[in-house]
Amino acid sequence: MSSKPFIDENFLLQNKTAQKLYHNCAKDLPIIDYHCHLPAKEIAEDINFKNLTHIWLAGDHYKWRALRTCGEHERLITGEAPDKEKFLAWARTVPKTLKNPLFHWTHLELRNPFGITDRLLNEENAESIWEECNEMLQQPEFSARGILKKNEVKVVGTSDDPTDSLEHHAKLKTQEMGVKVVPTFRPDSGMEIEQSEKFVDWVKKLEQASDTDITTFQDFLAALKQRHDVFNELGCRASDHGIEYPHSESFSENQVSGIFSKVMRKQMIDKEDAEIFKSAFLYYCGVMDREKDWVMQLHIGPIRNNNFRMMKKAGKDAGFDSIGDAPMGKSLSKLLNRLDSDDNLPKTILYNSNPKDNELFSTMIGNFQDGSVPGKVQHGPPWWFLDQKDGMERHIESLSSMSILYEFVGMTTDSRSFLSYSRHDYFRRILCNILGTEVEEGLLPSDLDLLNSYITKICFTNANAFFRFEV
Amino acid sequence: MSSKPFIDENFLLQNKTAQKLYHNCAKDLPIIDYHCHLPAKEIAEDINFKNLTHIWLAGDHYKWRALRTCGEHERLITGEAPDKEKFLAWARTVPKTLKNPLFHWTHLELRNPFGITDRLLNEENAESIWEECNEMLQQPEFSARGILKKNEVKVVGTSDDPTDSLEHHAKLKTQEMGVKVVPTFRPDSGMEIEQSEKFVDWVKKLEQASDTDITTFQDFLAALKQRHDVFNELGCRASDHGIEYPHSESFSENQVSGIFSKVMRKQMIDKEDAEIFKSAFLYYCGVMDREKDWVMQLHIGPIRNNNFRMMKKAGKDAGFDSIGDAPMGKSLSKLLNRLDSDDNLPKTILYNSNPKDNELFSTMIGNFQDGSVPGKVQHGPPWWFLDQKDGMERHIESLSSMSILYEFVGMTTDSRSFLSYSRHDYFRRILCNILGTEVEEGLLPSDLDLLNSYITKICFTNANAFFRFEV
Amino acid sequence: MSSKPFIDENFLLQNKTAQKLYHNCAKDLPIIDYHCHLPAKEIAEDINFKNLTHIWLAGDHYKWRALRTCGEHERLITGEAPDKEKFLAWARTVPKTLKNPLFHWTHLELRNPFGITDRLLNEENAESIWEECNEMLQQPEFSARGILKKNEVKVVGTSDDPTDSLEHHAKLKTQEMGVKVVPTFRPDSGMEIEQSEKFVDWVKKLEQASDTDITTFQDFLAALKQRHDVFNELGCRASDHGIEYPHSESFSENQVSGIFSKVMRKQMIDKEDAEIFKSAFLYYCGVMDREKDWVMQLHIGPIRNNNFRMMKKAGKDAGFDSIGDAPMGKSLSKLLNRLDSDDNLPKTILYNSNPKDNELFSTMIGNFQDGSVPGKVQHGPPWWFLDQKDGMERHIESLSSMSILYEFVGMTTDSRSFLSYSRHDYFRRILCNILGTEVEEGLLPSDLDLLNSYITKICFTNANAFFRFEV
Repeated sequence: MSSKPFIDENFLLQNKTAQKLYHNCAKDLPIIDYHCHLPAKEIAEDINFKNLTHIWLAGDHYKWRALRTCGEHERLITGEAPDKEKFLAWARTVPKTLKNPLFHWTHLELRNPFGITDRLLNEENAESIWEECNEMLQQPEFSARGILKKNEVKVVGTSDDPTDSLEHHAKLKTQEMGVKVVPTFRPDSGMEIEQSEKFVDWVKKLEQASDTDITTFQDFLAALKQRHDVFNELGCRASDHGIEYPHSESFSENQVSGIFSKVMRKQMIDKEDAEIFKSAFLYYCGVMDREKDWVMQLHIGPIRNNNFRMMKKAGKDAGFDSIGDAPMGKSLSKLLNRLDSDDNLPKTILYNSNPKDNELFSTMIGNFQDGSVPGKVQHGPPWWFLDQKDGMERHIESLSSMSILYEFVGMTTDSRSFLSYSRHDYFRRILCNILGTEVEEGLLPSDLDLLNSYITKICFTNANAFFRFEV
Repeated sequence: MSSKPFIDENFLLQNKTAQKLYHNCAKDLPIIDYHCHLPAKEIAEDINFKNLTHIWLAGDHYKWRALRTCGEHERLITGEAPDKEKFLAWARTVPKTLKNPLFHWTHLELRNPFGITDRLLNEENAESIWEECNEMLQQPEFSARGILKKNEVKVVGTSDDPTDSLEHHAKLKTQEMGVKVVPTFRPDSGMEIEQSEKFVDWVKKLEQASDTDITTFQDFLAALKQRHDVFNELGCRASDHGIEYPHSESFSENQVSGIFSKVMRKQMIDKEDAEIFKSAFLYYCGVMDREKDWVMQLHIGPIRNNNFRMMKKAGKDAGFDSIGDAPMGKSLSKLLNRLDSDDNLPKTILYNSNPKDNELFSTMIGNFQDGSVPGKVQHGPPWWFLDQKDGMERHIESLSSMSILYEFVGMTTDSRSFLSYSRHDYFRRILCNILGTEVEEGLLPSDLDLLNSYITKICFTNANAFFRFEV
Repeated sequence: MSSKPFIDENFLLQNKTAQKLYHNCAKDLPIIDYHCHLPAKEIAEDINFKNLTHIWLAGDHYKWRALRTCGEHERLITGEAPDKEKFLAWARTVPKTLKNPLFHWTHLELRNPFGITDRLLNEENAESIWEECNEMLQQPEFSARGILKKNEVKVVGTSDDPTDSLEHHAKLKTQEMGVKVVPTFRPDSGMEIEQSEKFVDWVKKLEQASDTDITTFQDFLAALKQRHDVFNELGCRASDHGIEYPHSESFSENQVSGIFSKVMRKQMIDKEDAEIFKSAFLYYCGVMDREKDWVMQLHIGPIRNNNFRMMKKAGKDAGFDSIGDAPMGKSLSKLLNRLDSDDNLPKTILYNSNPKDNELFSTMIGNFQDGSVPGKVQHGPPWWFLDQKDGMERHIESLSSMSILYEFVGMTTDSRSFLSYSRHDYFRRILCNILGTEVEEGLLPSDLDLLNSYITKICFTNANAFFRFEV
């Protein structure tokens, strides 16, 4: 066997059947990116990015972590250095990322959308790539929307605070642009009750956004519900919660009301009270989602802001978060069971951050399937640190061995960058490679029609039906 | 390379050496199914099953979970629907299980014992398969014993409550049938002390079964011991315990006696007391096993009955259990060490439910090997959710890297169905494939005699010696 | 494909690119064994070993565990049996270790340094191998230093108690021998405060070694610091701590001083106090390491001395330790963050004992990279039970997917035996095989210069720079 070239058309496809499945089926399916962090504003205004640093390095904490690990100074990462200097730091770091997914992402993204296929980014060619890409970035087809269209993106699900005005989503709804951009209800700030000042400020914002007065916990829920309605009007079909572990304490409405009032008076609450409040909050959010047939997404597990010194320097979400390892089987079960017991469990996607929890999650979802809708509870796609080849392969292995891969809603980017769409392509290649390999090994029947229908569901139609996006 | 056909004679065997090892050695070894849930009654009466639904779908919560996940109604799963309708629901679900072990099991079981090799079950051919198999099921060679013999099963170890009369085992003992059917002592009900009413009822049953009066904890132990003796008479060589985590609290006999008396007066006990009782219970069971040179089996880890709403509908053990993730290294060590300290640790098999615990278990057993008997403490074969290709491969990798695979007692079905014997075949193919692959890669010496003796031990003779089945 | 022979020159190298990378680059790089347990005395005196049992079986608890698991009597393991009998027990056990790393280590070590390539050790050829090797062991080139030189070892980092006189290291420093032997500061005994008598004895030894009086905690720290200085003089560039889990309680100096005084008065302290003391101890050790730009090594996770009965018989560290599974994400973060907050975090290597923690560790290190030095915080190489093919492959996969493999300090033996150097070779082959395979699959560019520089860094230059060994 002679070597395959690096990133050619059969990238990640190690056999003929895999290649057939990808090229004849997966490759051209449209993209539903049901969960990401793209700013609706940038799509509404259809902006062009000033340069590669703006579209590629700003906000990408994966790259920031790599830069720090390779000894680059913070000035070149989140600091004051000029854009071009930052890009050059990244360029000299790229060859060091060999075997890290960044090395793949980087060159996939230089290919799509930039069409650069003849060079692997390094210090020597950094200048030319900087020039070429920046020029392209000024063209209309490289605008925010231009890039979405190039990638056949049909739906973008952004992540939005309930207090957000959604003005950009409202504008987008009136525009004919071939991409449906819908908000996602992400009320994490409504759960962060330990920091009472911040919490009270948020409640004030919620008062304004919902045009209601909030004195009691019932008022609070009513205001949230009002925003939930508005989100729904603008096409939102899902909520999302980022939690370190499942909050599943028993609670009474009375208790929760008391805790809420205490915090509104800016009094300190203890850990147990915070836990009770969060458990109730998640429960009532689930009930709202269920009423509207939304999907509840739970991103569970990371431990955030591990480094206080650097947080002071570079701020939150700057690459100092990582995988947690708290046991969560019992509490996750309790959280879901409480909702399910009075038939209030919405369609749900559970995302784990630690791969050791793959099998926990793949089997947990089976406990709450009730036949009401295929794949009602989902083990969500690999996310954050798991969003790479090994992560995807292990997720697919776990999910298919312990649940039904056929009903899986497939990949989403969870990204802040317009350049991340190659991640869908990456996933599809990996999926086709796994299926193709098993066909060639005699572990799956060589029934291409069946396999193509399988791939189509996972890469497109399942998500469309599950979220009721109607594209 | 052209594709291998799906499930042919070299299924799962990806190279020549693997094929040689399987066909020349593993394939024809008899089966010792030391731990399963077959009803002794059905073997004693040598029943024929009414139809495919009875032998294949009734009691199979793997299939039930798949059906629910694919959106089938509970009526077609555990509900009132006619047998044939249930079968048709399963038939249309099978193609959706692609890459789940059910897809393999299903077609292996249609091949053996039914001989159906020309069709993969789906909605179109469901009718014909229903007819053909049901007809076969009425033949003598498809009776309970017929199927055991077809599969060269030499020993069946059932799972039995200490209060069971064992009448069917007694009858079986007198019959000449070529299969040894022995009970296994499974006293889980004697440990479920939190539910005091149920517990007291069980103690009453135990009084009857043992023909003793039980007032004190000492009486309780004596009655258990009496049943232990009776089980032993009928060929039992092992106990089995299903636990969520290892119970290893320190206890005094006085404490335990007090807790027992309290429960017998139907008073509530707290969590700590329950934990102490369970720790003592496991300890004394271990001591009894050790006295008779039995094997103590510990199935550790699942979290059960996660879904209260569906449990009300479909009952216990209906597919709402899943993998747990409680840390257990320290408590498992303490449990084993307590028994070992006064040399009361019996031969033991530890089964984990979460694959993240493979390495914990593979190394824990090494702490209690004392040279008294090869492989005295075993990391048991993959079980429940792990009973599939990935689960078996990871178990073998962990066990062989961190302990001595050569002394492993091998596979058991842990199944409720007479059709599960292909699972032994599945395991053997995977074992041969792993060894064959390593030979071809130069990681193992190409010494076929050594390898065959290795395979023979793991697939047959180790279990025979370990359990003293004497077949 | 025809089978590869067992352990030939291309052992573990499954393709042409892997073979090229190994033979043209990795193979001949010198070895920096930055962490091991070789006795400095044996190197200083350049001893010759009496026989194979002395150099190979004495102290090797991996082999002891295998022997026990295969049913050998303790007399032949840690007991009174003559050396040759012990060797014969091992010889008959070797064929049973097939697929365990011991089977590979054994035959790699017979090849290097003994040159035995025509036999796989078993009962039949045990006699001849015993004779041949024992004869060789008397030759000068098989002395302690002879073996180090044969393996191109440039640095040996031993593990030493702060109370050790370091007389052998001092002697070694004056000798011209081509191998740098440096101590490592391993103050575990200073943390074991629960066993107050042993602790007080150790403090007395520390008084003597440092020639100071220790009454207060401040005295204690000063004495430690004095030894730290002496270690530094003799080339020490790293500390090492063996802990079951990260100690990260909040503490004040006052508290710690109180606890220390209490113990010095031989009063009992409770668990919380012990935890506080250990947290403070680790912190202050980190501060000292930071001051001298040393590397702090944390070996985290094993549970030790699980078997009290055998510990009485065979002593500590006799093979009754195993992998633990305590969650540690939050506490590890807290420990590192506390040091980092006032910029006292030294360069650090975190070693995990449970492979389920690979991803936790690979991402945790990213939280504390600050660009000050490449790879400032390291996810250390696989160790103890993980020190084998599967363990190394999973570590490399985790580290490269979630951090930057390019900055990895590479392998170390962590061994008590002069015969373990083939473990570096093993690691290098595995590394080359992974990279070579990915090149041939088109997952990495076929840029041999880049790959060779990558391998050179990981196998040699990174460790040299990180530890400032200056060879």
